[in-house]
Amino acid sequence: MTTVGVIGGGQLGRMLALAGLPLGVACVVVEPSADAPAAAVADVIQAPFDDERAWAELARRCDVVTVELEHVPIGALAWLAERVPVRPPPAAVQAAQDRRAEKEAFAAAGIATARWAHPAATFAAGTVVKRRFGGYDGRGQVVLGRGVPVDGTLDGDCISEELVPFDRELSIVAARGVDGTVACYPVVENRHYQGMLRTTLAPAPALTPSLQSRAASIAVALAESLDYVGVLAVELFDVGGTLLANEMAPRVHNSGHWTIEGAATSQFEQHLRAVCGWPLGSTEHRPTAMVNLIGAPPDVEAVLAVPGAHLHLYGKAPRPARKIGHVTVPAERLLQLEAVLAT
Amino acid sequence: MTTVGVIGGGQLGRMLALAGLPLGVACVVVEPSADAPAAAVADVIQAPFDDERAWAELARRCDVVTVELEHVPIGALAWLAERVPVRPPPAAVQAAQDRRAEKEAFAAAGIATARWAHPAATFAAGTVVKRRFGGYDGRGQVVLGRGVPVDGTLDGDCISEELVPFDRELSIVAARGVDGTVACYPVVENRHYQGMLRTTLAPAPALTPSLQSRAASIAVALAESLDYVGVLAVELFDVGGTLLANEMAPRVHNSGHWTIEGAATSQFEQHLRAVCGWPLGSTEHRPTAMVNLIGAPPDVEAVLAVPGAHLHLYGKAPRPARKIGHVTVPAERLLQLEAVLAT
Repeated sequence: MTTVGVIGGGQLGRMLALAGLPLGVACVVVEPSADAPAAAVADVIQAPFDDERAWAELARRCDVVTVELEHVPIGALAWLAERVPVRPPPAAVQAAQDRRAEKEAFAAAGIATARWAHPAATFAAGTVVKRRFGGYDGRGQVVLGRGVPVDGTLDGDCISEELVPFDRELSIVAARGVDGTVACYPVVENRHYQGMLRTTLAPAPALTPSLQSRAASIAVALAESLDYVGVLAVELFDVGGTLLANEMAPRVHNSGHWTIEGAATSQFEQHLRAVCGWPLGSTEHRPTAMVNLIGAPPDVEAVLAVPGAHLHLYGKAPRPARKIGHVTVPAERLLQLEAVLAT
Repeated sequence: MTTVGVIGGGQLGRMLALAGLPLGVACVVVEPSADAPAAAVADVIQAPFDDERAWAELARRCDVVTVELEHVPIGALAWLAERVPVRPPPAAVQAAQDRRAEKEAFAAAGIATARWAHPAATFAAGTVVKRRFGGYDGRGQVVLGRGVPVDGTLDGDCISEELVPFDRELSIVAARGVDGTVACYPVVENRHYQGMLRTTLAPAPALTPSLQSRAASIAVALAESLDYVGVLAVELFDVGGTLLANEMAPRVHNSGHWTIEGAATSQFEQHLRAVCGWPLGSTEHRPTAMVNLIGAPPDVEAVLAVPGAHLHLYGKAPRPARKIGHVTVPAERLLQLEAVLAT
């Protein structure tokens, strides 16, 4: 039995733990909330992320420690890394916490992004101002009207980016093993609704070998530059076929949930294989669509009546704008699923 | 949240519970042993199967009750069935406990079997004597030499069967919903080693539409005759293309484990869909092989290095002749997997 410590016990921790059991991997999660989705299938240390006793318990019980979210005290990861392997490395998690450090990580790996400024400044083509720390799911950012000054649009420390006229938002999920091997899933297209990911199409429509190869090069360059181990996601803007990196996630990612049924190895198993030092799995795949369930629970019977549909509920109480689950279907069934979810 | 009571907390209960969580199904298992494989993912009522307080707790907590093994006190199931839906029905479970009742159930459904006798008698072509109650995995049965009298070969109540010169052992796993809909997986071929299932090939090599259709007719006839709800397996002898029913299992079955990765819907999810009264899932599938891990644990890294391999450990301590897990691979990788497992 291998024990993996996971910082965070949300749906990502839950799906990691579900993937772990058949592999002989037990997950122990640190999670502040009392009703963590992961609790159904993992041991939970209920504690704030900055609780030193929780770190000590993780270090004592686990063979390796990983994260299911990036907003983790870096001091905790650094302390843990002196006692037990921490994968991905703390510096990679730190880069994803801080939009300035993230841009610098992309630059250090030779990866193109939109132009940016810190302290925030305006760009003639249009400007997006983003909170430097703590934003997610479209929160903590504002698009400025032309000529609006940056100051005072958001509280605290912000960076600004040039508004890019992108055609679509893509992402690539990759995994890097302890031995440096990298396995990439296909580039996917992500469609958002009210700032939250609603639908992922895998592979992205009209994905060419060239686009896949350029996206994979970005993931590989970033992973190598960060000496990364585990699953990593990079969000990309497709601007007339040119790829610009937008954000990175040092963890399994919502745009990779389709891999549970759509790929030979799910991103969750892949992450565990990587952090345990085991061989990476096959990323062979079939055309698949994933739709997030946001806010209200679906009609379970109607969803299950869609041929090939797979329901994933996270055990979370419904609440507006809360991701409570997702549904995966063969790509050709997406419209049928959307019709069911709309009723 | 739907709560399903499962009598038995072994690997089948564990895999049912794993399949349940994403569907919003919580499993509560009754299991006498302290280290039940299902405990990692289900609530366990640790009690003997004939413990009346355990039955009462199941009836109180569960929306529906099912079994992961057939050797369950029928009195308990009958008591439960007066209080909560029990699926499959107790009579179907009883038929699988008693080799005489099983043969009679096949006959009542118009399904051909080898000739049999109870009390046991000898057949000119050769005779297998089987314990009437409690045998499994090849235990509790003896093949008689010609002219050997039946008496005294096995303790207790036995039936005998004519030894059939079969070409191979097949099985079919089917599910019947509350509305009477039946969904069949493809016929598979099962290869045994020392009386235990070692390898399943899905679909069975050289499976013809005719053979599939005849096996499916057997499963449908049996399920309808028993007013069955849930997943059901029928073991078949292929005797020169003629099918004879050998045994039935009123539950998910080892020869259906390949469906976790090889079919659109796993037998575990399918069983839960059926007993919860939900629509059955697609049985679309790809050529897949499953190998049981018996006795000793495998070299995890070597198994995971086989492309497309999926490891399923049950959390059981290794012990000779004990099923501790299984591995599923794309059919074309079977030899590669066997080479790894042989070392």
